[in-house]
Amino acid sequence: MEPKDRLGRLNPIIEFLKSSPGRLNKIFIQKEKGHYRISEIIRLAKANHIPLVFAPREKLDNLYPHHQGAVALLAEKEYLDLEDLLVTEKPAFLVILDEVVDPQNVGAIIRSAEGAGADGLIMQERHSAGLTATVATVAAGALSHLRVARVTNIARAIERLKEKGVWVAGAAGEARTRWYEFDFTRPVAVVLGSEGYGLRPNIKNKCDALLSLPMLGQVNSLNVSAAAAVFFYEVVRQRLQAEKNK
Amino acid sequence: MEPKDRLGRLNPIIEFLKSSPGRLNKIFIQKEKGHYRISEIIRLAKANHIPLVFAPREKLDNLYPHHQGAVALLAEKEYLDLEDLLVTEKPAFLVILDEVVDPQNVGAIIRSAEGAGADGLIMQERHSAGLTATVATVAAGALSHLRVARVTNIARAIERLKEKGVWVAGAAGEARTRWYEFDFTRPVAVVLGSEGYGLRPNIKNKCDALLSLPMLGQVNSLNVSAAAAVFFYEVVRQRLQAEKNK
Repeated sequence: MEPKDRLGRLNPIIEFLKSSPGRLNKIFIQKEKGHYRISEIIRLAKANHIPLVFAPREKLDNLYPHHQGAVALLAEKEYLDLEDLLVTEKPAFLVILDEVVDPQNVGAIIRSAEGAGADGLIMQERHSAGLTATVATVAAGALSHLRVARVTNIARAIERLKEKGVWVAGAAGEARTRWYEFDFTRPVAVVLGSEGYGLRPNIKNKCDALLSLPMLGQVNSLNVSAAAAVFFYEVVRQRLQAEKNK
Repeated sequence: MEPKDRLGRLNPIIEFLKSSPGRLNKIFIQKEKGHYRISEIIRLAKANHIPLVFAPREKLDNLYPHHQGAVALLAEKEYLDLEDLLVTEKPAFLVILDEVVDPQNVGAIIRSAEGAGADGLIMQERHSAGLTATVATVAAGALSHLRVARVTNIARAIERLKEKGVWVAGAAGEARTRWYEFDFTRPVAVVLGSEGYGLRPNIKNKCDALLSLPMLGQVNSLNVSAAAAVFFYEVVRQRLQAEKNK
């Protein structure tokens, strides 16, 4: 049985790279496998910003029996470009994931973001959970309704959002500003960091504001998907109240 | 190897029932097993409101090899009585779970509740995830800091809370009042319903208010632990803002 969510033959991989590169999560290349079509896969993957992993043959054997030196993992949904997410009618409400790696968390965040009416999610090519089957399952149907863009570099994506007038707020436990002290009625993007370490320093530096949820018990952090839901519904609360006060 | 989180011999079960019944999650009794000590276990369990499950021998064999006709599952933490939770210095902030059965959700809710500074959690004996090892793991340390009471009947517990001046708000997707339109600066309890069906009708009837989180996308509900986090931090937000305005 050949696995359904991956490709192990060179021609179909090249076809996908040419026709719908946004459907590819990641490509594994067998180390020391020299072949002109493998070189072509590497070239096309780089041109399309698809993560490449060079691995020994045994690793690829586990992913796909009788592969031809490359195995491509398919995403549950086609990735968009950042520019596709910048077209919105109402003030933008975007979500950025900075190295969130647990597919359970990514799925849960997608479900809450879609419920809160976010316009889209931005994730990085590397060091993040791709749009795998687990993510889709945990998202409970929401993945098919939320636009997801994949970018090479989150810091550059934030710069681009700021150029387009989007205010960028990062969730950071140590921040002195509380999460509701930011004006979310403007076009905004909420940035959430990795489970273990939070936002990377260079990402924090790019944010317009860093906001915290106070921890009032003994434990020192919330799960990232719980924190995400709180931020998303603060956006909703402020916008509903602003509309009412008009 | 005898499993650590359970008891399969009659004497230790009777000891626990007499000395620390709050540590017992549930007791399985082998059907048609007549023995005076098993009758004593049944009597003590009923007196202490510990759920009993009558099951065929094979079921018990799977839980504990060489059991003696009864298997008791231990909780990760001792359950308290409702009255223990009603002693608080600041305005009460309690959480009630009405038949939340997934231990992942219960663990996640405990983590967020503790982070938001809740005084305690109330759950029902039956039809809810007990304080199992999975709950403790997902709660990431928070379980040891949060007081948990187990009650026979959630509706009666709500009545008791109301007698003590606690305002009870239920999360209900169809409610017309939005979650931030309730005054959470008073002593409050937030009631969360089961993953599939929400709050039971008799529980809804007992609440002082039903509150909803609007669903602004295509999916029709949030995960209960995400919704819980939003409610808990709305309590925090209102109380922090009220303190600032004093």
